Amino acid sequence: VSAAPVGPGATGRLFGVGVGPGDPDLMTVRAVDLVRGADVVAYHCARHGRSNARAIAAAHLGTQIEEALTYPVTTETVGGPEDYQARLDGFYADVAARLAEHLDAGRDVVVLSEGDPFFYGSFLYLHARLGTRFPAVVVPGVSSVMASAASARRPLSARGDILTVLPATLPDDRLRAAILGADSLAILKLGRHFARVKRLLAELGLTDRAIYAERVTQGGERVLPLAETGDTAPYFATLLVYRGTEPAILGTLA
Amino acid sequence: VSAAPVGPGATGRLFGVGVGPGDPDLMTVRAVDLVRGADVVAYHCARHGRSNARAIAAAHLGTQIEEALTYPVTTETVGGPEDYQARLDGFYADVAARLAEHLDAGRDVVVLSEGDPFFYGSFLYLHARLGTRFPAVVVPGVSSVMASAASARRPLSARGDILTVLPATLPDDRLRAAILGADSLAILKLGRHFARVKRLLAELGLTDRAIYAERVTQGGERVLPLAETGDTAPYFATLLVYRGTEPAILGTLA
Repeated sequence: VSAAPVGPGATGRLFGVGVGPGDPDLMTVRAVDLVRGADVVAYHCARHGRSNARAIAAAHLGTQIEEALTYPVTTETVGGPEDYQARLDGFYADVAARLAEHLDAGRDVVVLSEGDPFFYGSFLYLHARLGTRFPAVVVPGVSSVMASAASARRPLSARGDILTVLPATLPDDRLRAAILGADSLAILKLGRHFARVKRLLAELGLTDRAIYAERVTQGGERVLPLAETGDTAPYFATLLVYRGTEPAILGTLA
Repeated sequence: VSAAPVGPGATGRLFGVGVGPGDPDLMTVRAVDLVRGADVVAYHCARHGRSNARAIAAAHLGTQIEEALTYPVTTETVGGPEDYQARLDGFYADVAARLAEHLDAGRDVVVLSEGDPFFYGSFLYLHARLGTRFPAVVVPGVSSVMASAASARRPLSARGDILTVLPATLPDDRLRAAILGADSLAILKLGRHFARVKRLLAELGLTDRAIYAERVTQGGERVLPLAETGDTAPYFATLLVYRGTEPAILGTLA
């Protein structure tokens, strides 16, 4: 995982760096080193200015130039999906131009990604715009899916199990087919879809096979059986569902 | 991710610690700290004595007691599946008894797991035997799936994509159904199933959507389009297949 060294007059390098699920100690050694040595550290921010990715890496920030990349909208409901897409495209074009200025000036840019950069991460949109123009390196990170299983003390998958990661945003028929085709599931992006997914799992007789995990490895971590949850959940919560037959996993569900 | 502190006369704690895909710098800060501070470090070994997990953590080993857990058989082909299962059960019972002696004596035991402990990891069999008798903590790690995508510079999944992790050991009909139900796939455990999976992907018109990754983040890393591979692959190789429509992923395939 190394890019060509930068000589005088050369451009900087773009690093997409996974910083893990929340606990700063779940950053990799490589991620810590790259953040500390970066000329520029960039991270996504919600409109209210908070950045989870920055919070994870905060202990390693000092004199680096910081670039906060503030999302223009917070949900897909504002103005409909087409307006949302147009705003996002404009946002990534602006951000890519800002980071390209640093790279053209020879400055190494580290983009912090919660979890892993290429697993439902927004870094992939920057990589698509900048990854062929500049030397680029992607540093994998610990995903929230693995962290949820660890916090729940419930293994994800064994031997011949099929494991499917499923965004809760999909319609019922796609969710149902994917659930029935897998032995193990991690259902992401719950938010306003939580009650619907919960109902669907009940219909399929899977409520007792499901564990809910929220803010894993962070302050306020909540891990509990699906049956004990209410009807709301934040966007970044995860459901783990096990439909398989592996005794070493089933034994941890009770 | 903390267990209750150990007082005088108390048992030791069991840690299942992911050490990542191969590059020692892809260990987490937590993993490094736990390995350094452990009384006992245990790791799985092939019969020839090599342990990839130990190699990853080697720089952090010194005066810790080491427990090499040597698999009794190397593939499921020896003596048929029932004999294999019986041998494995005996192996895990023996290993659990060895580690329980350390834990009963108050020694903290760190079990090194390549990748992540609960993602197709053998730690889950030890956790099933020891995780209720002793205080246990699971520390997630960087999975080879995320590392393969990073090395290939090909994002795994975006937005509403369904991502399925599929062991190549499954029969054709299950592989086909799982492939057609997902937008993105990581196919693991290739080994002697590689030629069959390659043929299946060709039948489904997906050869040009597939990237082969072997020994990612380690010496001898090989990442190439599926079309450029031969007919054999090691067990720990991965195929990444993208069937979805996300332009930021498709654009990086050409």
